[in-house]
Amino acid sequence: MTRSSEPSRVALLGFGTVGQAVARILSSGEVPEVRLTHIFNRNVASKRADWVPSSVCWTESAGDILASDADIVVEVVGGLRPAYDWVRGALEAGKSVVTANKQLMAHHGPELLDLARARGLEVRFEASVAGGIPVLRALQEGLAGDRLVEVRGILNGTCAYILSRMQSETIAFADALAEAQARGYAEADPSEDLDGADAAAKLAIIAAVGLRRPVRVGDIATRSIRPIEPVDFLYARELGCTIRQIARASAEDSGAVFAAVRPALVPLTSGFGRVEGNQNLVTVRGVFGGETSFSGSGAGGSPTAVAVVSDVLSVSRGAKGESASAPVETAFHDVSGDFVAPHYVRFTVNDKPGILAQVTTAYARYGINIEGVLQLPKFRKDRLPFVTTLEECSESVLDRALAEVARSDFHVQPPLSLPIFS
Amino acid sequence: MTRSSEPSRVALLGFGTVGQAVARILSSGEVPEVRLTHIFNRNVASKRADWVPSSVCWTESAGDILASDADIVVEVVGGLRPAYDWVRGALEAGKSVVTANKQLMAHHGPELLDLARARGLEVRFEASVAGGIPVLRALQEGLAGDRLVEVRGILNGTCAYILSRMQSETIAFADALAEAQARGYAEADPSEDLDGADAAAKLAIIAAVGLRRPVRVGDIATRSIRPIEPVDFLYARELGCTIRQIARASAEDSGAVFAAVRPALVPLTSGFGRVEGNQNLVTVRGVFGGETSFSGSGAGGSPTAVAVVSDVLSVSRGAKGESASAPVETAFHDVSGDFVAPHYVRFTVNDKPGILAQVTTAYARYGINIEGVLQLPKFRKDRLPFVTTLEECSESVLDRALAEVARSDFHVQPPLSLPIFS
Repeated sequence: MTRSSEPSRVALLGFGTVGQAVARILSSGEVPEVRLTHIFNRNVASKRADWVPSSVCWTESAGDILASDADIVVEVVGGLRPAYDWVRGALEAGKSVVTANKQLMAHHGPELLDLARARGLEVRFEASVAGGIPVLRALQEGLAGDRLVEVRGILNGTCAYILSRMQSETIAFADALAEAQARGYAEADPSEDLDGADAAAKLAIIAAVGLRRPVRVGDIATRSIRPIEPVDFLYARELGCTIRQIARASAEDSGAVFAAVRPALVPLTSGFGRVEGNQNLVTVRGVFGGETSFSGSGAGGSPTAVAVVSDVLSVSRGAKGESASAPVETAFHDVSGDFVAPHYVRFTVNDKPGILAQVTTAYARYGINIEGVLQLPKFRKDRLPFVTTLEECSESVLDRALAEVARSDFHVQPPLSLPIFS
Repeated sequence: MTRSSEPSRVALLGFGTVGQAVARILSSGEVPEVRLTHIFNRNVASKRADWVPSSVCWTESAGDILASDADIVVEVVGGLRPAYDWVRGALEAGKSVVTANKQLMAHHGPELLDLARARGLEVRFEASVAGGIPVLRALQEGLAGDRLVEVRGILNGTCAYILSRMQSETIAFADALAEAQARGYAEADPSEDLDGADAAAKLAIIAAVGLRRPVRVGDIATRSIRPIEPVDFLYARELGCTIRQIARASAEDSGAVFAAVRPALVPLTSGFGRVEGNQNLVTVRGVFGGETSFSGSGAGGSPTAVAVVSDVLSVSRGAKGESASAPVETAFHDVSGDFVAPHYVRFTVNDKPGILAQVTTAYARYGINIEGVLQLPKFRKDRLPFVTTLEECSESVLDRALAEVARSDFHVQPPLSLPIFS
């Protein structure tokens, strides 16, 4: 599509929080280059909004959108089906697509980009990662002259909210989760957020775009933030740290690709340690340019809508993105979650003599060096939390050592290990 | 230029630090889409490097570059002349231009973009602001769907280095400057950096691209960091702050445009307070998306070269930037530096009774509310620094109040006022 005097025609698939925010911006008069022409949603009668221009055609049939004269289809319904069929259908009908759908792009991105390129169309998906922060464009275009080798991010607002509340209020995980749910920051079933699947989908997209290493979402190792307790924030603070869910991926010179999503210790004074609420932060490292960071609103209707509308404008202006430029790598890479890092391990034990000796002996057997032991006073002896900090070791080796330690009878609950990121 | 199987041909004007770093990336095999074909520099014989492909044509004549078959000219010589003539010449010869030249773009940006658009060419200038951070692209494209109303940035690495050294080592300004010069972080004549002209040029570019408000560089109010003393960091710390040179611009709903570069108090725990060395940080605020921040290496050959090469790749791939998309606003806006903010004012006095009464009376006369008075112990009475912190007031009103106070005979040196940014 090339720039002409006629505005591009935009059809909206979905009129929820993000869809409404997109329609607000397109109806504000701020973007005369594009015109909203169609809105699809189930049960249109209850959705119809009086601030939408009367020229807009409302429909309950996605087929109407695919058969329309719209130039660009915006998909903000989310989920894999039927979104996948609609996006394919739009491309097959000669329409470029802008989507906010992380699951769709994480699972089917390479295929959809390939289809778009074959037809001279665009698929843009900035809004699928890190809400309003234009990080994909930065990775893909602004840092195109570099070779990016590592990405670290806080990509899930629900986890950032819960962990920052646990940090500042010293409240239990369950209470912080209930508060997040009451405020609408966490869903009734928060598993995707808490256990890492949401961040893993975003990380898969970033790995494909930024590191040029497509990986299967299901291959990305994840660990939940559920086992984190208030005492972990106490011990973390002793180490100058706090705890956040960190998504991390790297492309090694050897060709190996690492990716994982898990809670980790991060310095209180670092950018990661300062992320709260729905903020997202992404840091990338390139071989020529060093570290570059991007932060802003990672969720919310309006910030996400800014990303959608910016993509719509790019397509309308005829800019060429991923799908139109270099061929997309469609083969998935093998990926390991076995990062090497210093670690924090918290044990909760029914105290008796000899426990530390057993733990340190197990570490020694696996060649793991202890950096320090922390035991704050005033805990109950029959439920005593203490922490070992470890020099750099691979997670898999540490897991084997901890599996051995876990066989002892002094544990009140399983040991918790967290990498420490500097 | 559209993507074809032939690599784009790139000519390099300038082979200093940035030029060499650009040549390194283009010679690395990482970017097969473009080919370095020409290098211009004075005294080529002493510059010729053996790692540059032998196919590259070296020349001491800029005319050779303009007459060459290069598709894209990269200008990294810097300064207004002759860079301006060469860039115009390149556009008139049908070549797109990528430049790292902040003075050129701050002074002649709208005109050059206009010329490029008229000829269907591109002028890209990401490297002119914030080194390796792709902030212009983010403002122009990634946040195109928002209306940006405010920008704040740390845009000068020399000031950030000097101020962070004064903060951490409690050394005098002159010593920090000498250290910066010895390490190559400050030039022999550091006036452009210290007094704000360098950051003002970058701010002018950001205002034009991000706020869509071109302003004349010379109209941007600047204040030097030279009057900052170690005692200011002591008092700032009492307020939970440190001091950095901040470039700030805003576009008000009324149409008024504000822009200024000056030292300011920023919270120690904020992103701005944590910037050190050659890091740059830019925060923008949009009406829809809220705040988004970008940070990374603001200087250095390799980061800057990443920005240049990324721009070259964009042009080569046929992406449309500022010059090819919306018409550029070429009329300059009036601009005021009279921001309203809480303020810090440090007096250095030969102590005697009644000084504070005189100061506070003058503030009262101008309707300025005092928030607090700070006087740390153990200073000499005949050279006593004390601080007043003020509630929000406009800088011009404060300046008038301070001019009145300055007439008294108790001053050992003029009062120093700094805005406090939260």
